[in-house]
Amino acid sequence: MTSRILTPGSTLGIVGGGQLGRMIALAAADYGLKVHVFAPDADSPAFDVAAAATVAAYDDAAALRRFAESVDAVTYEFENIPRETAEILAAGAPLHPSAEALATTQDRLAEKTFINELGIPTAPFRAVDSGDDLDRAIAAIGRPAVLKTRRFGYDGKGQRMIGPEGSVDRSAIMAEFGGAPLILEGYVPFEREVSVVAARSGDGSFAAFDLCENEHRDHILAVTRVPAGGVSPETAASAVEIARRIAEALDYVGVLAVEMFLVRENGSERVVVNEIAPRVHNSGHWTIEGALTSQFAQHVRAVCSWPLGDPSRTGGMAVEMRNLIGAEAEGWAAILAEGGASLHLYGKGEPRPGRKMGHVTRLLPRV
Amino acid sequence: MTSRILTPGSTLGIVGGGQLGRMIALAAADYGLKVHVFAPDADSPAFDVAAAATVAAYDDAAALRRFAESVDAVTYEFENIPRETAEILAAGAPLHPSAEALATTQDRLAEKTFINELGIPTAPFRAVDSGDDLDRAIAAIGRPAVLKTRRFGYDGKGQRMIGPEGSVDRSAIMAEFGGAPLILEGYVPFEREVSVVAARSGDGSFAAFDLCENEHRDHILAVTRVPAGGVSPETAASAVEIARRIAEALDYVGVLAVEMFLVRENGSERVVVNEIAPRVHNSGHWTIEGALTSQFAQHVRAVCSWPLGDPSRTGGMAVEMRNLIGAEAEGWAAILAEGGASLHLYGKGEPRPGRKMGHVTRLLPRV
Repeated sequence: MTSRILTPGSTLGIVGGGQLGRMIALAAADYGLKVHVFAPDADSPAFDVAAAATVAAYDDAAALRRFAESVDAVTYEFENIPRETAEILAAGAPLHPSAEALATTQDRLAEKTFINELGIPTAPFRAVDSGDDLDRAIAAIGRPAVLKTRRFGYDGKGQRMIGPEGSVDRSAIMAEFGGAPLILEGYVPFEREVSVVAARSGDGSFAAFDLCENEHRDHILAVTRVPAGGVSPETAASAVEIARRIAEALDYVGVLAVEMFLVRENGSERVVVNEIAPRVHNSGHWTIEGALTSQFAQHVRAVCSWPLGDPSRTGGMAVEMRNLIGAEAEGWAAILAEGGASLHLYGKGEPRPGRKMGHVTRLLPRV
Repeated sequence: MTSRILTPGSTLGIVGGGQLGRMIALAAADYGLKVHVFAPDADSPAFDVAAAATVAAYDDAAALRRFAESVDAVTYEFENIPRETAEILAAGAPLHPSAEALATTQDRLAEKTFINELGIPTAPFRAVDSGDDLDRAIAAIGRPAVLKTRRFGYDGKGQRMIGPEGSVDRSAIMAEFGGAPLILEGYVPFEREVSVVAARSGDGSFAAFDLCENEHRDHILAVTRVPAGGVSPETAASAVEIARRIAEALDYVGVLAVEMFLVRENGSERVVVNEIAPRVHNSGHWTIEGALTSQFAQHVRAVCSWPLGDPSRTGGMAVEMRNLIGAEAEGWAAILAEGGASLHLYGKGEPRPGRKMGHVTRLLPRV
């Protein structure tokens, strides 16, 4: 269904019940919207802050149809939504971002091909569907390189490094992935990782938050700092321009994140796109306190066909966001006792290793 | 029940389902708490953001008991809770603020007597239970004066001005109030209205937000500005000190607001206490964007026996909060289009005249 301007009191449907859905729901409530969350797990943290809940599988067509017909617009918190699911949702209510944007960004091969076609650099890549493909891809791209599943990867899951030297047991490697379609990506010797979190609305307007610098630990985002350190204003502007062109080409509606590598070569710096997340993003959590409009409020605005909000940093302050992963969340009491630290916990049960339990944001003296 | 330190994942009970309960619930969710709202009206806006709901009357002892026993602490969004209700709640779970604080602040006579006993000035007042009392009170206090119900008044409801001159038809006036216990309060010739929104925790620590200046229209708060204009730092500090002494004397746990008149006489300024609200307060809504800790987060911290947060203004900016009352909320689209304005809507249905539908906060260049 086509876009429509939602009025306060309307119901926003959110597919996915994790912390991103929960924070979208909180932002929607602050605008006087009702929220209906669709998720398969009855324990999903987003249910606790939603006016309505559907507990059903993502391939339950009847439940999806009922859900979409009961809401005024639908969005989602994760990109691994099957194409058929997206199409059922879109038939019942305006779906933002669109099923097309989802299809392009949920497959690493389609995504990188799309980005290169815009003239925007990525790591070199090759599709890998067989051991022969793998040999050819390594020959073309060189080593080190990273072999990844084309779909359903996140936080380093579904990836395997091909080291700079040594023999490559292609059968063992291919067996490891159990026949999933793969992509080999060249290794980019980056200085730092950055991301642009930005929003585009249906009328084509675009608003980017300031460039984020991201530090990963064990493939999981650990810290985001804003503004990104050691990046020239020109490079930051070119990163935002890349995000704008990607959003434009996808006819995107909502918040997206574009993860990039900052590469320094021969004294000049440039960015290379790593991947696109068609959703609110962990590297944008700092915006809750650190920007005049949070990424969650901004996403709600875009999805409701409302004007985008001001993405400026609050008071021009620098911001640091740290994820609380697994047992780190047990430090909540110390964080609460720390002046100026803003604690966010997601209402999840067990603090399993690698599980994102919350985050803490600190506003720092301006830089 | 005595206080206990709540851990994330605990359930906070909130009595009352209006916008204050809703905003407390949103703040609690952001700390990973579950929220259970108790309110008599199934359409209450706070239900939409709560993990659990009880729809029952405030005098339904069995429902109150079940509710209190199912949560880890209880708080409330309004002071007109019957004493018996508070006692039932307190028997099942730690109740903050306490039943005693509630009893003192929900009755204007008890409240003003308590404040004067602390040596803190209020308007002159007299209890009025009969026409004779009214005559005597007018003779003692002078005119103009305001006759008010001792309990259950808010937003100018349950009040009647006794003008500076003309005859007073005491029988007609007493009949108007239908036998409710009354209080006559002398008129304070104030220059402006201010309030201190502050929190006290069970360990005695205290944190006040900056002094607010409040503008009422038709007895309903229209605008809050922070910092309060034209008030010396000494006067602002003495206002905060008054709030601290009141909170201390009540052994208060939670956020409270102390509304005051600023009086300028013979070139000196002083504050006179108007009333105490034993809860989060409309004049503290600016803290959501304008302070490092919002009044709602601060209240949750106090009620959970957590350390209080930093109440400093974000980036030292000045802040203006405007209520959206009745049809004013229909201007939501223009506010969304305004850079830097933060819109909050409460998810209420009909925009009836005088009904608080939302508010908008604007951060202004620092002053």
